[in-house]
Amino acid sequence: MGERIWTAALAVIGDEILSGRTQDKNVAQLASWLNVQGIRLAEVRIVPDVEGAIVEAVNALRARNDYLFTTGGIGPTHDDITVDAIAAALGVPVVVHPQARAALEDYYATRGGLTDARLRMARVPEGADLIPNRMSGAPGIRHGNIFILAGVPHIAAGMLDALTGSLEGGLPVLARTLGAWVAESEIADLLRHTERAHAGVSIGSYPFFREGRVGANFVVRATDQGMLDACADALLAALEAQGRAPVEGGI
Amino acid sequence: MGERIWTAALAVIGDEILSGRTQDKNVAQLASWLNVQGIRLAEVRIVPDVEGAIVEAVNALRARNDYLFTTGGIGPTHDDITVDAIAAALGVPVVVHPQARAALEDYYATRGGLTDARLRMARVPEGADLIPNRMSGAPGIRHGNIFILAGVPHIAAGMLDALTGSLEGGLPVLARTLGAWVAESEIADLLRHTERAHAGVSIGSYPFFREGRVGANFVVRATDQGMLDACADALLAALEAQGRAPVEGGI
Repeated sequence: MGERIWTAALAVIGDEILSGRTQDKNVAQLASWLNVQGIRLAEVRIVPDVEGAIVEAVNALRARNDYLFTTGGIGPTHDDITVDAIAAALGVPVVVHPQARAALEDYYATRGGLTDARLRMARVPEGADLIPNRMSGAPGIRHGNIFILAGVPHIAAGMLDALTGSLEGGLPVLARTLGAWVAESEIADLLRHTERAHAGVSIGSYPFFREGRVGANFVVRATDQGMLDACADALLAALEAQGRAPVEGGI
Repeated sequence: MGERIWTAALAVIGDEILSGRTQDKNVAQLASWLNVQGIRLAEVRIVPDVEGAIVEAVNALRARNDYLFTTGGIGPTHDDITVDAIAAALGVPVVVHPQARAALEDYYATRGGLTDARLRMARVPEGADLIPNRMSGAPGIRHGNIFILAGVPHIAAGMLDALTGSLEGGLPVLARTLGAWVAESEIADLLRHTERAHAGVSIGSYPFFREGRVGANFVVRATDQGMLDACADALLAALEAQGRAPVEGGI
């Protein structure tokens, strides 16, 4: 209790998400990774490939979170403007990072050579470090507490993997899921009372309709294992007492 | 050209998205639906089940878009606070909508009756109309240009279906997709020049790695069919001239 909560925000940059062409996968992927680092994903904004929109989101989000991640817009084509927009938000120039240039020269040595377009991927906001990318040539970028990742989910995943354990965070959030074949509206009072009786614990209720029946999963979350178990066990017992046959692990 | 562009924003409300537990599907679903209505999804924010965060997002987004949609947080449980937060943002009280109450009474007549928890789903910001929900008892809510939808994707889809054709918009955005087995970095200049030569048309480039080879799809977008075709045909011809064997419809 009373421990510091570390937060992160994510700016998803990309017309392809806002047009509905591409289903974003980076929100869920980053959220799960952050949980393990003891950092909470506090807010997400999805913005188009427009410099003003990116600058506004970056400045709003970095001002009130410990960390800011961005995904998308770091490739070689004309619609990849993330680096320029973040440099503008920070008020620093864009420079070619010598190590990124070397990595790209190496990567493209057997792939047609380093063209001007490819060299774009070595550009960083001045003062940045690189985040290794084992999947393809272009690295991710770290500037202070801003982490600039690729938009392609498996490349972003590799960059997160390279960052694992390097960010300061709090206690990881622990969770237990219980499920029952019950309409959540029938046990709304029980959920509310159980949550209120256990400070520091939250209960989320997620209804579903499956095999012709209604049910719900209840996710109990806390950073303290004892508090988590006390609340989840109380909910389990109360559901059993009502004849709801709860399922540990969810349905 | 110079025609009015109609925009919408989406506030996704839900701890389950920010925790990584649930993969959002409403962004892509709403974006695709809006395209057909001639409305552009301009920005998305994902916020937790916290009243202050919802109020801030709702007020920021509705101030600068023609329409605001929200998904999530309209169920019967303690973590469903969307209606209260939007009423607070609008500065109006929460009232029970008689038609929503009647719909819920009807729906729950054979399902255990209308409890206090279920009656929560009849609450709306004062002055609101209902959006029909054929899937389950609780309706969606319309308050001026704000549309409050369910978080469960197939229920949200039904509500969008009920709204089809009822929102004023501009010309639908048309798109053609071309694909080629080429690294986007090799044709970045070609893409930039082609886009510049065709005002009112945008080209998005989406690389992929598949079957051991790199490729990219190029999405050409415009509201005018003639302009769209002129640009897409020019890109097709240029790719062919370079021996890139483009594929209409994308790879």
